Amino acid sequence: MHFPLRALSNVKYQPKKGFLEMKGKTKERTLTVNTVKTFAQTLRMMALSKELIDTDDIATKREAYYVSKNWDSARFNEQTESDAVMDDVEALFKMNREQLGFIPEEKGGDIAGQLVVIDKDRDTGEQLRIDCTKFGSGAYSIPNSVEELDFETEAKFILVIETAGMFQRLVKHNYWKKANCILISMGGVPTRACRRFIRRLADEQKLPVYVFVDGDPYGFSNIYRTLKVGSGNAAHLNEFFCVPQARLLGITPQDIVTYKLPTHPLKDVDIKRAKDALKNDPFILHHKAWQTALTQLIEMGVRAEQQALAKHGLNYVMETYLPEKLAKPEQFLP
Amino acid sequence: MHFPLRALSNVKYQPKKGFLEMKGKTKERTLTVNTVKTFAQTLRMMALSKELIDTDDIATKREAYYVSKNWDSARFNEQTESDAVMDDVEALFKMNREQLGFIPEEKGGDIAGQLVVIDKDRDTGEQLRIDCTKFGSGAYSIPNSVEELDFETEAKFILVIETAGMFQRLVKHNYWKKANCILISMGGVPTRACRRFIRRLADEQKLPVYVFVDGDPYGFSNIYRTLKVGSGNAAHLNEFFCVPQARLLGITPQDIVTYKLPTHPLKDVDIKRAKDALKNDPFILHHKAWQTALTQLIEMGVRAEQQALAKHGLNYVMETYLPEKLAKPEQFLP
Repeated sequence: MHFPLRALSNVKYQPKKGFLEMKGKTKERTLTVNTVKTFAQTLRMMALSKELIDTDDIATKREAYYVSKNWDSARFNEQTESDAVMDDVEALFKMNREQLGFIPEEKGGDIAGQLVVIDKDRDTGEQLRIDCTKFGSGAYSIPNSVEELDFETEAKFILVIETAGMFQRLVKHNYWKKANCILISMGGVPTRACRRFIRRLADEQKLPVYVFVDGDPYGFSNIYRTLKVGSGNAAHLNEFFCVPQARLLGITPQDIVTYKLPTHPLKDVDIKRAKDALKNDPFILHHKAWQTALTQLIEMGVRAEQQALAKHGLNYVMETYLPEKLAKPEQFLP
Repeated sequence: MHFPLRALSNVKYQPKKGFLEMKGKTKERTLTVNTVKTFAQTLRMMALSKELIDTDDIATKREAYYVSKNWDSARFNEQTESDAVMDDVEALFKMNREQLGFIPEEKGGDIAGQLVVIDKDRDTGEQLRIDCTKFGSGAYSIPNSVEELDFETEAKFILVIETAGMFQRLVKHNYWKKANCILISMGGVPTRACRRFIRRLADEQKLPVYVFVDGDPYGFSNIYRTLKVGSGNAAHLNEFFCVPQARLLGITPQDIVTYKLPTHPLKDVDIKRAKDALKNDPFILHHKAWQTALTQLIEMGVRAEQQALAKHGLNYVMETYLPEKLAKPEQFLP
């Protein structure tokens, strides 16, 4: 069996494609006395994947590990071993593991607004039309795997929000109705399912993606950057999980000045994160505008949260800030 | 102004009521030169609450802090100060802060199954009937505040689940249909909104609440106990946020033996947590069955996860484990 080599040495940065891509190097797994166990485990893992797909079932990485406890001497001793084999299978088929029936442990990502998600009832096959305008103060919680969902929407854009509190405010006031948009709450760093959902929705419906996070290095380099170009240590997956159409609406460093926001001093860890990004992050190094923004933030020495807009009144964010920003999307950070 | 004293010295344990309750001690806040700022802040916070209720609006604790930045010399310098005043107001009115219009930052809690949640559209006043059987592989994500929701259900019980992965399995297979129940995912330690949702639903619909967590001290003393009797450091709120009807379905220490589950050794922190609970936790000290269970776990020296049931096949949990357990609810841990 020949697998793509999953290592930094086999990766190149592709600005046009928008993600870190694998080069052509492969590793070989042959059937010998020394490799018989790993070889058997790889075949077993492929068989489990086939079974999941044939029976329309799912397994978390953790469950797959426990299933192996019945594979006699091919059983895994630690989940790290089964995860590594799963990563190999994923890379071999050039698919993401959700497409192979393996789902992440964690959920995350809530939706409200101008979107109908199309799913089906497993038992009856009946089509389910999930209208995200009909959840009141609640929301639609996206499943761990989103590969089979379809979408219908007349929305003009997707607004992706860092904090649950801000999302709740916009939902409570039906902001999506006025702005004709889809609201998505990430609740911090977005999960795989959340990133994949946004990507599929944006691709299929050709929608711009505007991102609204706290104005601090964590919001920029961790949350926004992970959403937009993926993470550094899973390059064979970024193709599926990046959202190249994402752009940063705010809170930008300049917003802190323009909107006279209350701030907190940057912590040491914030400064370190921003300086690291300026020095090492290929995404930041590619975008002059980001270098300017991070440098400005370091010079100001402060950060501001989304909710700092409440200083001007609780609904200032909906009545003034978002409309003013949305009138000039060309000013969003790349 | 006279406030209930929020301190351990003013708390008693009420096994019959099921939560730690406040005794009668109060503290006084008068208008003097030294207290004028806190006095003004308290009045301002009450006024903000009144405004929220009058305008059907909400504010997170963080937003309330930022709103104060426009209160001139009554502004708060740190959020800890505004939180303390909010706690005072909450205790003064003997209401939870969600009822006063203040909502938590964090969301959490997904629902699927035999439940219709009744909410309303803020703009039109139209009643929204949210049918939790119609979300396919997705779910209904409960809002940060659940005080105004109503419920309709024919379900026989509520099954509250620790991990998102197990929840997704039960949802994917429409387990709620076969078992005629409501599935709720906590995703770890339940948020306030999640606990309050379960409490209101269980009270109003007179439903038993069965809890399905990992078989380890964290699952027992942190997740389950917090859900059932509330947390130690917010006694004036436990009345609203405890779920006295909760009972632990599994994974019990005995399940590890009965179902021959794959285990992991207890970590030092697990053993410490279990021993602490046996020594200091008034809830555990009140229930002999819990003392026996925790002692058994410490003696076995192992823990088992919900997903360990996958050793017997991915759907063993639905086909064998849950039906067997649900046939004998009298054996659930209190």
